[in-house]
Amino acid sequence: MKDGRMPEGETGATRFDDSFRGKLNELFVWRRDVRRFRRDALPDGAFERLVGLACLAPSVGLSQPWRFVRVDSPPRRQVVRDSFARCNAAALQCQSDDRAALYARLKLAGLDDAPCQFAVFADGATAQGHRLGRLTMPATIDYSAVMAIHTLWLAARAEGIGLGWVSILDPAEVTAVLDVPANWTLIGYFCLGYPVADDDVPTLEREGWETRRPPDSVLFVR
Amino acid sequence: MKDGRMPEGETGATRFDDSFRGKLNELFVWRRDVRRFRRDALPDGAFERLVGLACLAPSVGLSQPWRFVRVDSPPRRQVVRDSFARCNAAALQCQSDDRAALYARLKLAGLDDAPCQFAVFADGATAQGHRLGRLTMPATIDYSAVMAIHTLWLAARAEGIGLGWVSILDPAEVTAVLDVPANWTLIGYFCLGYPVADDDVPTLEREGWETRRPPDSVLFVR
Repeated sequence: MKDGRMPEGETGATRFDDSFRGKLNELFVWRRDVRRFRRDALPDGAFERLVGLACLAPSVGLSQPWRFVRVDSPPRRQVVRDSFARCNAAALQCQSDDRAALYARLKLAGLDDAPCQFAVFADGATAQGHRLGRLTMPATIDYSAVMAIHTLWLAARAEGIGLGWVSILDPAEVTAVLDVPANWTLIGYFCLGYPVADDDVPTLEREGWETRRPPDSVLFVR
Repeated sequence: MKDGRMPEGETGATRFDDSFRGKLNELFVWRRDVRRFRRDALPDGAFERLVGLACLAPSVGLSQPWRFVRVDSPPRRQVVRDSFARCNAAALQCQSDDRAALYARLKLAGLDDAPCQFAVFADGATAQGHRLGRLTMPATIDYSAVMAIHTLWLAARAEGIGLGWVSILDPAEVTAVLDVPANWTLIGYFCLGYPVADDDVPTLEREGWETRRPPDSVLFVR
């Protein structure tokens, strides 16, 4: 149908079949937070293409407030690595005696190896969307950027490319070194590249840090 | 391979092929924020199944801090509808003269028709994950809940089921009526059901409220 719209009553349930849904489930199962990367570069234009897909994410009021800042400069990357090292050392000091040794063994970022690294900001001052949907719940701007990140994460995984979310950082320090407008809020810093290995179990569970809980433990009815 | 892990060097690029990636792209393109629902009930167990898939989302420190509260009670749903009506009227008053008429014509929630409605909270007090990754960027707990929502959104769309995110609400009021632990933060309220129509263009763009921008406008290099 012209413009892509389907007539009233056509739910589009036939647009995606059982085979696709099975592979989509598999994508969710095999998507990992990657910390061990090969150093091989990504194909030319891969990052731009993944950002293009990320831009299909939902956003409050169609504000599209996500800002992708690829970090290529070695001095800037060094500032990020240093911030991680300091914050991770501080976090280790916060661990209980019985968990500190385990925490120290965890590899929590691929900053030394990932060929592609980028920060994602949310632009809370954007006029796009004319503030629709944001007045009583302004964090929806940040949540929109998160959904763009998640879209990129899934699209990358479907190409065998891994993403790792690095949050053990001083956000003010990372924001300052990236020289972005004052109204931008850092949502996260990301490593992107080919993973050393794939897994259908989260690394933190493999390493004994934590275990996943069953879905019925998070489901309530009122 | 035992436990699902693939040997070092196997990137898993062959796990997903071009055909799947094409359909995944289509999923991103056809996923909408739905406001016009049919009243038909979802299949038995559909909501629980979708929550199960949502639980495959990434979470900081494997904290899985998402809490899904399905709202079945008519009086509670009425409180949510009233909150929306009040907040939407207030938002209309905030519009500039030239945009107020357009705002008033927009349908911004399917609260009267969607057969399934639920709230999602983030449990910031959860001990799960032992606070890994959260110390310098505590909003990662909320972001994890957002990614669970987004996972459910995509999984639903793959089944021809639509989701609408309602943020034009008083979060304190909605939280209070749902009788949840004090530490839970409302992330959003959601309508779920069969959409009246599908579209590959956002409704807000169809209605002339806003237009999408090209990906290169959100891509920067440092």
